[in-house]
Amino acid sequence: MKVAVLTGGGDCPGLNAVIRAVVRRASAHGFEMMGLRDGWKGLLDDNHFRLTRETTSGILHRGGTILGTSRVNPFKVENGLERVKRAIERNEIHAVIAIGGEGTLSAATRMSQEGVRIVGVPKTIDNDLNGTDFTFGFDTAVGIATEAIDRLHSTAESHKRVIVCEVMGRHVGWIATYAGLAGGADVILVPEVPADLERVAEHIKHRHASGRTFSIVVVAEGTRIKLSHEGQEQLITSGALDEAGRPRLGGVGALLANEIERRTGYETRVSVLGHIQRGGAPTAHDRVLATRYGVHACDMVAQGEFGKMAALRGNEIVSVDLSEATRELKKVPQEFFQVAQVFFG
Amino acid sequence: MKVAVLTGGGDCPGLNAVIRAVVRRASAHGFEMMGLRDGWKGLLDDNHFRLTRETTSGILHRGGTILGTSRVNPFKVENGLERVKRAIERNEIHAVIAIGGEGTLSAATRMSQEGVRIVGVPKTIDNDLNGTDFTFGFDTAVGIATEAIDRLHSTAESHKRVIVCEVMGRHVGWIATYAGLAGGADVILVPEVPADLERVAEHIKHRHASGRTFSIVVVAEGTRIKLSHEGQEQLITSGALDEAGRPRLGGVGALLANEIERRTGYETRVSVLGHIQRGGAPTAHDRVLATRYGVHACDMVAQGEFGKMAALRGNEIVSVDLSEATRELKKVPQEFFQVAQVFFG
Amino acid sequence: MKVAVLTGGGDCPGLNAVIRAVVRRASAHGFEMMGLRDGWKGLLDDNHFRLTRETTSGILHRGGTILGTSRVNPFKVENGLERVKRAIERNEIHAVIAIGGEGTLSAATRMSQEGVRIVGVPKTIDNDLNGTDFTFGFDTAVGIATEAIDRLHSTAESHKRVIVCEVMGRHVGWIATYAGLAGGADVILVPEVPADLERVAEHIKHRHASGRTFSIVVVAEGTRIKLSHEGQEQLITSGALDEAGRPRLGGVGALLANEIERRTGYETRVSVLGHIQRGGAPTAHDRVLATRYGVHACDMVAQGEFGKMAALRGNEIVSVDLSEATRELKKVPQEFFQVAQVFFG
Amino acid sequence: MKVAVLTGGGDCPGLNAVIRAVVRRASAHGFEMMGLRDGWKGLLDDNHFRLTRETTSGILHRGGTILGTSRVNPFKVENGLERVKRAIERNEIHAVIAIGGEGTLSAATRMSQEGVRIVGVPKTIDNDLNGTDFTFGFDTAVGIATEAIDRLHSTAESHKRVIVCEVMGRHVGWIATYAGLAGGADVILVPEVPADLERVAEHIKHRHASGRTFSIVVVAEGTRIKLSHEGQEQLITSGALDEAGRPRLGGVGALLANEIERRTGYETRVSVLGHIQRGGAPTAHDRVLATRYGVHACDMVAQGEFGKMAALRGNEIVSVDLSEATRELKKVPQEFFQVAQVFFG
Repeated sequence: MKVAVLTGGGDCPGLNAVIRAVVRRASAHGFEMMGLRDGWKGLLDDNHFRLTRETTSGILHRGGTILGTSRVNPFKVENGLERVKRAIERNEIHAVIAIGGEGTLSAATRMSQEGVRIVGVPKTIDNDLNGTDFTFGFDTAVGIATEAIDRLHSTAESHKRVIVCEVMGRHVGWIATYAGLAGGADVILVPEVPADLERVAEHIKHRHASGRTFSIVVVAEGTRIKLSHEGQEQLITSGALDEAGRPRLGGVGALLANEIERRTGYETRVSVLGHIQRGGAPTAHDRVLATRYGVHACDMVAQGEFGKMAALRGNEIVSVDLSEATRELKKVPQEFFQVAQVFFG
Repeated sequence: MKVAVLTGGGDCPGLNAVIRAVVRRASAHGFEMMGLRDGWKGLLDDNHFRLTRETTSGILHRGGTILGTSRVNPFKVENGLERVKRAIERNEIHAVIAIGGEGTLSAATRMSQEGVRIVGVPKTIDNDLNGTDFTFGFDTAVGIATEAIDRLHSTAESHKRVIVCEVMGRHVGWIATYAGLAGGADVILVPEVPADLERVAEHIKHRHASGRTFSIVVVAEGTRIKLSHEGQEQLITSGALDEAGRPRLGGVGALLANEIERRTGYETRVSVLGHIQRGGAPTAHDRVLATRYGVHACDMVAQGEFGKMAALRGNEIVSVDLSEATRELKKVPQEFFQVAQVFFG
Repeated sequence: MKVAVLTGGGDCPGLNAVIRAVVRRASAHGFEMMGLRDGWKGLLDDNHFRLTRETTSGILHRGGTILGTSRVNPFKVENGLERVKRAIERNEIHAVIAIGGEGTLSAATRMSQEGVRIVGVPKTIDNDLNGTDFTFGFDTAVGIATEAIDRLHSTAESHKRVIVCEVMGRHVGWIATYAGLAGGADVILVPEVPADLERVAEHIKHRHASGRTFSIVVVAEGTRIKLSHEGQEQLITSGALDEAGRPRLGGVGALLANEIERRTGYETRVSVLGHIQRGGAPTAHDRVLATRYGVHACDMVAQGEFGKMAALRGNEIVSVDLSEATRELKKVPQEFFQVAQVFFG
Repeated sequence: MKVAVLTGGGDCPGLNAVIRAVVRRASAHGFEMMGLRDGWKGLLDDNHFRLTRETTSGILHRGGTILGTSRVNPFKVENGLERVKRAIERNEIHAVIAIGGEGTLSAATRMSQEGVRIVGVPKTIDNDLNGTDFTFGFDTAVGIATEAIDRLHSTAESHKRVIVCEVMGRHVGWIATYAGLAGGADVILVPEVPADLERVAEHIKHRHASGRTFSIVVVAEGTRIKLSHEGQEQLITSGALDEAGRPRLGGVGALLANEIERRTGYETRVSVLGHIQRGGAPTAHDRVLATRYGVHACDMVAQGEFGKMAALRGNEIVSVDLSEATRELKKVPQEFFQVAQVFFG
């Protein structure tokens, strides 16, 4: 029985660990494994290769994906569904294991509704997928961002500066929240709550007034900033244009740094972490989670649990409906905003 | 209102993060915080100091505990309970937050039954406390052990050797299981299941016969080894004596390495990780968990939830009975033994 | 005998290690140590505190500087020299140990010519100081940049992209060269040689034509880019304006990424590492170097070697003239450009 | 023209980086590269494979050696030299690049005297090879040991203990010296000077008397301990037997810990780092050094510099006589013993 596996969407530490686990578990079930190249594209273009214990040896701790990835959505390609179905038939693929985030799993959900036997594995460094407590890749991203914040701390302190650290998170603030708490940030700003610049500036001034000589602000890239412009309040996002219609220099981090410096008078710098958060070797935590997901996904195929996704609940791996995972984004709950008294909505 | 905090038992990454979070949250509740030196000893000897935002600044990411720790059990000291109660009265301590593992929390449970207002925070790198999905310190220990296994891998491969890596875990195999999975171990041996040397040797020989030139064995220090001696099966633990009544050289790792080399004929080496697994900077994951525990413990005091312990369930911090946490050890469940097909009971 | 120590210029991993070593060695010489706050400012404002074994305990591995730092140049302040001299006299300071880069040591050189007893310690993550083989902080910066490049590699490969990584280095390309070699970059661009965009694009196209699906470009922030504009060749630096007179979006890294994508047609992304390269815990290498510098600087004071700087030659610490260190920048020599065939001038 | 490359002796981070650099440089010289399996054994058994850019891609940062290694000495094998010469002739090998430590390079020296065209690359984590300032692998070993000492520090402090950390170094104390300085050890013991237990115990007692509550002792595995036994002084090494003729439990670290605890009365623990010091990913520093060595070795072949070894002098790579490198061990010079006042001979 042939089973195909694909990885879609952005890079994420732990992809190779899932692939390796799927392949090893497959041999226990007697499956023959096929790797699809570059996400759904591998089915559209009939581009794949055989996966064996040997070809997946030594990849557990390596970043990236040996399958390649892309953001190609078969439902946005002419005759996409037809081509996918034909490739599945022609290659006698019994089932597809789709490892991906919101985009990939949404396509998987529809594909499943169209009758394709499909199983999902949740992947996103942003941790914004519903239905699972955590996605693999998130812990690694948080670790990288925290190490960066640790380093910025010493510089902020030596120079008596405010440093703004912009981390990933377009729609949710999980990375900002976790890395901010782990790094001891003085202010954490997230997409869940528009940032109130007045309160941020007040808090920083208050800190300096009581003897601290520096402050660290962690902000998720998708955070909206409340700004008062000529008496009117407006929400600025990083993609906004300036009055002359030119794109603003840099993202929300640069904007914040400018505004904080202007309002507080303290020297302020910005550091945008960017792509380094989503590549490279996964943490031990993510390798274990990815491995368990891979094993479970294979078991789901063996048990005919299609249209479902492997998920973490407490410390158990369970199966949940694919549609549940992509229905809405999983936001940072209120509890976290109270933990550290450093969120300013 | 005065609240005291203590850390007891072995060192564990994240202790300082809990202390810092407790102190910060305390100011929101209007508590005055008092740090007890060296665990319960601080109450027995009336040895303590005031904790403030200033004295707990910059410790979030630091290993160790600024309070000091000890394994002193007040119930094993003459008039221990009396002395503890008197110190609490004399210093007008409203409640005690006890951060510790099995030993510390058992004492806390009894103390609570004796009428002391007490709140617990679960701490152990071994992750063997019931009532909580995870303890802080565990993720850091797993990370350190995994990095070590990664390094041993390259040496095993270059030299075509078997390498046995002994990790912490006297009663349970959580570290061995997680680090073994994360490090891609070929054999994982845990205290939960006596190790069958014959099967281990067979598996290693089978690997080499099918072309692999090396193997990695991860073993928890408390694993018992099944040995046949003159037709009789016996269980050997690391503390056992040899036939001449001399203590065996080294622990279970050294024993295993000898036996594997003897049975397979492959050059075998042992690496005992020891104390490096329990000290130093916590991972981002453990810093967040420790911080959330500290905040919750303070809230428990504010809400009068005594005789209880902060615990992680899924991704929520809840309160559970102290007695639940120490009733029995939390063992690695069956599911894990199936994940990687590398457990040999 | 009182000896004062100051740290000037930008943050640099290892500053605390030098301070700690100076203080410990001082006790062997019977010196009383005084820490000046915020570089030369500490003398201008007569702002300092006593340094002892106790106040410098536990700082060896910590980033930043417990003395604080600033870029204040006493020769650019009214009556600066006078005020410095008066503070030295008033506090009976026998000698000053100045830890800093080009700016701080230039001031030290002049100060020495004005009769102040001064000893220098070379500090710069850029490694551009003459007279010494290496400065502390450089190894740490290279390590951080290399880890980032390792991470970008996996993303570049998974997505079949070109990734441009901009590292520090305004005037010289030491960090770009070392991190580029260590990270296996396919192109390294440095301020020493204007970058030839045509050759860079050709090389990347050639790589992809021969089967590689991604490329990594490492560029120092101060690299100038040769561009042909309407038949005329011009050198563009990161600060340049565009045709409309607006500042270009981002620095040289963003410029490069745009140009490479335009010329090759491959998807190209940029990652600007920024401040994380200059803060946080120093590597073991930098801690040893910093410690040896600190010990030697103290010995120089004891032996009356003023107007000189501690320097590394081979594996020995020696004393060189301060003026030698600041006469000209130390550039990356030709040999390196040949090492990896990845430099494109 | 065919050039062969081999790696001999123990594992060492950076071996793959040398191999990769040799192969890349070879293509510039038009050499065809051949990899010999398992050191000199590859020539004795005529076991080798072709090395190309493709087969050496992605190995720069990986630990171990894709060539395999062994300690086989052709001069200790029957007809070894004959077989080596015949293999060289049969395969038309123009020259051999031997990457190794004392053992491998000694064989290379003799081989060169017997007329084989040979070039050496110095490899040892111990840094004990003469003729070069540093060997690759050393910086990585120091980094690993330093991280371990950092972790032990927090545990020693929390528990008010003495911790003895045994690091590699059979004949010289480079790793102990560098990791000890970088880790802020209170006592460093090296093979260059027999350790005086009385002075060590006195120093530790003195520290505790003046308020410190813990001490860290770093000892190289080959350090000899001066012990007075019934009025007679004797030197004990780790391999020594006890009075009953039984092997002592553990090495020099365990012995030291016992003696320190007995003499000072402070709780003392030992941590033996072992194999984790010699495997896994090399630091950026070692990757650059290894790469430069590989490039230079290839250039030496091109220029006919046989019987020589690539060496680091200051920041330049030069060629030195192979015999110079192996004539005697490079010991830690006196200067270091004075740096930190923590060496007790």
